[in-house]
Amino acid sequence: MKPIITAFRESPDGGQGLARDMQVRWALEEVGQPYDVRLVTFAEMKGATHRALQPFGQIPSYEDGDLTLFESGAIVLQIAEHHAGLLPEDPAARARAIMWMFAALSTIEPPIVERDAAILVESDRPWFEARQPCLEERIRNRLTDLSRALGEAEWLGLTFSAGDLMMIGVLRRSSGSGLLEEHPNLVAYVARGEARPAFRRAFDDQYAVFLASARRAKEIS
Amino acid sequence: MKPIITAFRESPDGGQGLARDMQVRWALEEVGQPYDVRLVTFAEMKGATHRALQPFGQIPSYEDGDLTLFESGAIVLQIAEHHAGLLPEDPAARARAIMWMFAALSTIEPPIVERDAAILVESDRPWFEARQPCLEERIRNRLTDLSRALGEAEWLGLTFSAGDLMMIGVLRRSSGSGLLEEHPNLVAYVARGEARPAFRRAFDDQYAVFLASARRAKEIS
Repeated sequence: MKPIITAFRESPDGGQGLARDMQVRWALEEVGQPYDVRLVTFAEMKGATHRALQPFGQIPSYEDGDLTLFESGAIVLQIAEHHAGLLPEDPAARARAIMWMFAALSTIEPPIVERDAAILVESDRPWFEARQPCLEERIRNRLTDLSRALGEAEWLGLTFSAGDLMMIGVLRRSSGSGLLEEHPNLVAYVARGEARPAFRRAFDDQYAVFLASARRAKEIS
Repeated sequence: MKPIITAFRESPDGGQGLARDMQVRWALEEVGQPYDVRLVTFAEMKGATHRALQPFGQIPSYEDGDLTLFESGAIVLQIAEHHAGLLPEDPAARARAIMWMFAALSTIEPPIVERDAAILVESDRPWFEARQPCLEERIRNRLTDLSRALGEAEWLGLTFSAGDLMMIGVLRRSSGSGLLEEHPNLVAYVARGEARPAFRRAFDDQYAVFLASARRAKEIS
């Protein structure tokens, strides 16, 4: 029985692998666990069947036998706890890898998502331009601290972990904004993550979903 | 050796227990683990000594022997994994309790913090009023889904867990906003958490810090 995850049928990010199924796919590839994907439309995501799995009507969800989970952080942690390769064995190093997972989702991601949301829903509002410096400053503060914490190290801990996987997934959302690019060590860190064969396989799989949806859109038009 | 946490010397929330040390205190009380608190000023939080523990210059941090952690979610999970009482033994129920911890921090908290931040830094800006409905709607959507997921249950799982502890801590930030109060089952859920003896002890301890800082402020003025 392979675990089943859900992902967008129509990826809104143009195949960039920025949706939250990406980290789950990446984690499953890192540990060599085959999985199935059930693609859902936006309408299906908000429907009762999907909400029984994911009460907030989002992706991804994760089904493994009787266990159902949502929250990409929780799913990646579940995968990391039950397979070798994503958490160090030393208890302190393991706790710190999990700490970086929380830092990615709770400290780094919120200001990035807030700016993305402003661009998505407020870019035609009169205050949009005036608010940008403040939104950028919040991201900049967090990235500056993260850059200092990483320093010249290869990963946040001694070896690649689920903490790096979540952090790199989150940092990719600010790639190209100019903010990430103020920190060459973070740019190189993201590139190291993206160069991992497991990342490439996960990326290619979600990109194939985007290509299929783009082909469908072309056929319809 | 008792673990040591850091907390605000001058609590900016007026002793309401809304700072992120509160969930860590509560978790330590739930499992009966005595701890010490090192209070830090805002200047100390941003200094090199504290940043060596907490690279983002925030509270709380957690020191237990050689292990140092930050991120309240990671600290609570560490406590929950090493003491009985905060995670179910059944593997699926345990994974779902951890899932609710991530949901609290990654799905419920960000829109609440975003609205708090707007009130804090943008309330004198011309766009403040115009943006409120959108900020409230984001919180409302999440709380409506959470309310439906909780239903008439006592806790998010069969028994109280670290998932409830984190969720109730986050929901307390929206208490009194009118948004939480649209969902009587969430109000009752928060009240059940606040009625726990461990919550009371944690609350009283952080309140004592606030009282001491208020006394100091009075002596200075």
